Amino acid sequence: MEHLNTQALRDLLEVGVSLSSETRLDRLLDNVLEKVRKIIDADAGTLYVKEGNKLRFAASQNDTLQTRVSAVERGNPLLNMTFPISKKSLSGYAAVTGEILRIRDAYEIKKSEPYGFDRSFDKKNNYRTRSVLCVPLKDREGQVIGVLQLINNYNKQGKVVPFSEFHVELVRSFASQAAVALTNSQLTEDLLDSYYDTVSRLAVVAEYKDKSTAMHIKRMGMYAQTLSYQLGFSQEDAECLLYAAPMHDIGKVGIPDAVLMKPGKLTAAERKVIETHPQIGAKILEGSKSELIKTSRVIAMTHHEKWNGTGYPQQIKGKKIPLVGRIAALTDVFDALSTSRCYKNAFDMERVLGIMRSEKGQHFCPTVMEAFESALDEILSTYDRLYLKAEAKTKKLKIKK
Amino acid sequence: MEHLNTQALRDLLEVGVSLSSETRLDRLLDNVLEKVRKIIDADAGTLYVKEGNKLRFAASQNDTLQTRVSAVERGNPLLNMTFPISKKSLSGYAAVTGEILRIRDAYEIKKSEPYGFDRSFDKKNNYRTRSVLCVPLKDREGQVIGVLQLINNYNKQGKVVPFSEFHVELVRSFASQAAVALTNSQLTEDLLDSYYDTVSRLAVVAEYKDKSTAMHIKRMGMYAQTLSYQLGFSQEDAECLLYAAPMHDIGKVGIPDAVLMKPGKLTAAERKVIETHPQIGAKILEGSKSELIKTSRVIAMTHHEKWNGTGYPQQIKGKKIPLVGRIAALTDVFDALSTSRCYKNAFDMERVLGIMRSEKGQHFCPTVMEAFESALDEILSTYDRLYLKAEAKTKKLKIKK
Repeated sequence: MEHLNTQALRDLLEVGVSLSSETRLDRLLDNVLEKVRKIIDADAGTLYVKEGNKLRFAASQNDTLQTRVSAVERGNPLLNMTFPISKKSLSGYAAVTGEILRIRDAYEIKKSEPYGFDRSFDKKNNYRTRSVLCVPLKDREGQVIGVLQLINNYNKQGKVVPFSEFHVELVRSFASQAAVALTNSQLTEDLLDSYYDTVSRLAVVAEYKDKSTAMHIKRMGMYAQTLSYQLGFSQEDAECLLYAAPMHDIGKVGIPDAVLMKPGKLTAAERKVIETHPQIGAKILEGSKSELIKTSRVIAMTHHEKWNGTGYPQQIKGKKIPLVGRIAALTDVFDALSTSRCYKNAFDMERVLGIMRSEKGQHFCPTVMEAFESALDEILSTYDRLYLKAEAKTKKLKIKK
Repeated sequence: MEHLNTQALRDLLEVGVSLSSETRLDRLLDNVLEKVRKIIDADAGTLYVKEGNKLRFAASQNDTLQTRVSAVERGNPLLNMTFPISKKSLSGYAAVTGEILRIRDAYEIKKSEPYGFDRSFDKKNNYRTRSVLCVPLKDREGQVIGVLQLINNYNKQGKVVPFSEFHVELVRSFASQAAVALTNSQLTEDLLDSYYDTVSRLAVVAEYKDKSTAMHIKRMGMYAQTLSYQLGFSQEDAECLLYAAPMHDIGKVGIPDAVLMKPGKLTAAERKVIETHPQIGAKILEGSKSELIKTSRVIAMTHHEKWNGTGYPQQIKGKKIPLVGRIAALTDVFDALSTSRCYKNAFDMERVLGIMRSEKGQHFCPTVMEAFESALDEILSTYDRLYLKAEAKTKKLKIKK
């Protein structure tokens, strides 16, 4: 066991701290690689992330060639490059077997070894790879999730020497910290995905109830996203609306077919039944930690409220109606007017816009209506793509039959 | 900056490695606390986890008092004890403000400070707390999720001295690593929860379609869990069945009310429509990473298959039917026979068991039927609790009205 100088120790501690404070995984991995190279004095190194059967370059640094590639620098061609995992390469061998590889000289690997060294990078860049250290990154179940590879260890005289046993211990600690950061980032992504998963399964259910729903909810999502950008929402919040707005009518799964699909006029009693769908939707979506499902719940509950207070179920008015509900109210009506339903044909766009404009300050929040006017080109292009063209295609298919 | 001796450095590296390899959070936190105390030479220490407005003892060690409390030792009274967070205590102050506290002597804190030291533990245990170091654990958003507190730092002469600036740097690194492990564990739990969340939202939807479903799916889950224990499933897998079995009929949300709720006999065409519900269910539940939802999908798809190959939709037979599907097939029939439905009264238990037994090797897998016989007491006690008593209660309520 060797000693670390003061700076090396400081670097080691600093990596530990950055682990919980650096929010961007790419920067964190870049930082881990930089610090471990500095402490050990390795000329070059790469941090690979395993993705299915491939390894992806997540960070790569080479002092001699003065290159530094990380996900932070988006322009670099090496960035996010992947290659299939094979036991024949050094990093591939570590990834497949989960073993640590310590190579004295990459050019003198015995033919009897299962792995070898590909000199093409060296030739192309006039580089000479000698000592190599490959340490797999593993998750808690012991599965390999990446590889940390270091190249050319300098001794104090500036000569390239093999990596030592001590280096292996050091690098294992760094690799473990990188592995935890990776796992963490993957879990965070999985968690977000799982909420989108919930919403999309509910959407599948809604589609079974009403076949025309599929395209309607897609358009609703797109329109709502467009308006929320126009209203200054962040990209994250606008994307949330893209998936939350389609949940507005999920409560209709709780309305009996006889009422929901009645062809003629509804009686007052039937209307009352239909008008429970916001509360049913809110009930289906209640009590979640996720922003997506919370927003979906608000939209389900408030998309039939009107700016002037004559909507339902709460008859709230003006800014008391949550903004996302006001957005969904407008896009829902726009879609109802501009498309054909079982009870009506699609109105032409002039008529649609006439009705929409007359409802500014009545049914619709004036600010949202203004955003709608400003974003009209984009709205109409979505309408063209997700309604007119889609309808034309369906008709063609029907004629062919 | 000071130096670390060889063993201290080894300990530091070892914590990094355990971070990605130790699967149990309690052991990991205990290990972090032990190593940091050893490296710094602190007599005592506690790792608190923040839970809402409280701090929970996750690990606690005191060399002088020769106590060691961690979640690993289940018997200990301190274990998992919580107390409300208050700015007046040292750990509370660190938790509220996110600041690091370094105290020379806990008994000489100025009255002007917002925090103070509670001597009751010392008095009770004849201990003397002097130097204290409190470092908050933070997640990536900078939110405090715990506190690492160390007490009484020994110098080389065995005298208690204040913690140094260098100790602060060391402890921050350890605290960060503990924070990442905590976050990781929380994320893993949230992810599992989110899949249960999906299933329970779908169950709410199913209930709207058919009010009698709520108790039926609860019983289905309980019966399936009982049988899976009997068949040697692990606790985790049996719990999975508890939540997955209730998803068997989720596909019915896609069947029109007119067919699903028809009072009389179904026509052949209507029967065909009903018999699509396994595929609809499988479609709603397809393509998940989660064991729970994958199992739910298998159950939805196969709970109407029969051991002798005369079921639907695939007419598979024997062990080609997944075991979880064979379990759900049996429990579904048992519940249908033993409870009253809109089309029939509940049969008495003798008749139910007679029918069940006659179907062994016909409708039902013989092994699952044997498990049912062996677990009959438990099954009947669930039946009593979730059917007979529940029905009696409902009837009482109806009479009161």
